Amino acid sequence: MTGQVYLIGAGPGDPELLTLRALRLLQSADVVVHDRLVSDEIMALVPAHIRRIAVGKAAGFHPVPQDRINEILVDLGRAGLTVARLKGGDPTIFGRGGEEYDALIAAGIACDYVPGITAAQGAAASLRLPLTHRGMATGLRYVTGHRARDAELDLDWASLADPDTTLAVYMGAANMVQISAELIAHGMPADLPVMAVSQATTPRERRLQSDLSGIAEALRDNPMPAPVLFLIGRVAALAEEEVLRLPTAEPAPLHKLFSHG
Amino acid sequence: MTGQVYLIGAGPGDPELLTLRALRLLQSADVVVHDRLVSDEIMALVPAHIRRIAVGKAAGFHPVPQDRINEILVDLGRAGLTVARLKGGDPTIFGRGGEEYDALIAAGIACDYVPGITAAQGAAASLRLPLTHRGMATGLRYVTGHRARDAELDLDWASLADPDTTLAVYMGAANMVQISAELIAHGMPADLPVMAVSQATTPRERRLQSDLSGIAEALRDNPMPAPVLFLIGRVAALAEEEVLRLPTAEPAPLHKLFSHG
Repeated sequence: MTGQVYLIGAGPGDPELLTLRALRLLQSADVVVHDRLVSDEIMALVPAHIRRIAVGKAAGFHPVPQDRINEILVDLGRAGLTVARLKGGDPTIFGRGGEEYDALIAAGIACDYVPGITAAQGAAASLRLPLTHRGMATGLRYVTGHRARDAELDLDWASLADPDTTLAVYMGAANMVQISAELIAHGMPADLPVMAVSQATTPRERRLQSDLSGIAEALRDNPMPAPVLFLIGRVAALAEEEVLRLPTAEPAPLHKLFSHG
Repeated sequence: MTGQVYLIGAGPGDPELLTLRALRLLQSADVVVHDRLVSDEIMALVPAHIRRIAVGKAAGFHPVPQDRINEILVDLGRAGLTVARLKGGDPTIFGRGGEEYDALIAAGIACDYVPGITAAQGAAASLRLPLTHRGMATGLRYVTGHRARDAELDLDWASLADPDTTLAVYMGAANMVQISAELIAHGMPADLPVMAVSQATTPRERRLQSDLSGIAEALRDNPMPAPVLFLIGRVAALAEEEVLRLPTAEPAPLHKLFSHG
């Protein structure tokens, strides 16, 4: 009897943003294989008797290579175990979940995806802004700003430069100088609003508000812990309005860094 | 004392895909205001003593206009009630949640978003395909294929015609003839895979597999109940591989319609 692996989205960080299915599987698995970025608050929901294996990236740790993660999952499945493979966000969006799925199916091990709230959705709810909004954004686009070592950033700038679409950039902090410059060079307004959000929906959430021309410098002056999500588009200005509305908040200048809660 | 309104994402239909927060709020609210498309399985989680108000579209019903929905929410908030406003998918993505939020804040009523799994994520998990995948899709884009009465379909076709991005089209069934033709005219391959999924993640889920050149005709020959989501891109072909992998499945020809479970 081979086991079963569930590729589970842990959501953006707030444990209440887990799905009911994710919680059920986390609490009934034989073993939880988790990225190091999955929040402590979420790992606290895993019963103490369930084995945990940490994989993936964290500052100061050598990441476990993807091939090795695939092997670990296959070995656990072959041992007949029920495995909760817990990934930040949604396993089908920028999580390399598809690669793990392919490796498992090729090895004859049953595998299912369990969706999760992705960072852009968590950040939007936390910032109280809609990702699409009448007169501001007719659509939504997710790209990754990460590039493989020695590779060029592989983005279709002309297609991305659409001010009617909210652009969510994952893993883009290291390349924001290039990303913002290319978007402006391809026709995006220099004053298009941008919100950068670090560790959205957790008690450690931090935000940085700027515009396309200023975001890279603002981020250099106010570095934020990973993961950082960028929301680029007219709706990003609505976060500021919300802050200004709060009776205790002072007027928020552009580039102002503030903490959650 | 004014009340509090939560704009809550109900997810794609499967009640286990609700977030923990959504369930908690649904079970502690004074009143649930729900779209008619929110599944019966989800409404069954609302305790019997909680008042329900159905708004929004359903076949054969005259929809409650958005302004009237806003008024209902404001009136309930002014009456001091805790309101769970339950919307399909995610309230910040194509749900007009931003309009309800604005109306409530303008009336001085506290309002928060609670994110939900959106239809594309639910369909991807159900079809067992990743929305981004190495060598197939570097990003993901959500657009709406719905157009306002007497208006042109307002989409930037040149920007959309990017075969490296998975394109999820919401509410596009009525305009798929135009959408597929424009995408091909702007450079998308005619044989780019397409999956149409109706009522994804529910027991009523139905799927239609085709390609850009064939999807409109396939849909005309096999009409599906709303809501229908279209996933356009190379990853859409992976759903077929999965079906072929199942020991009980017959080889699935293009355009074949099949049911869930």
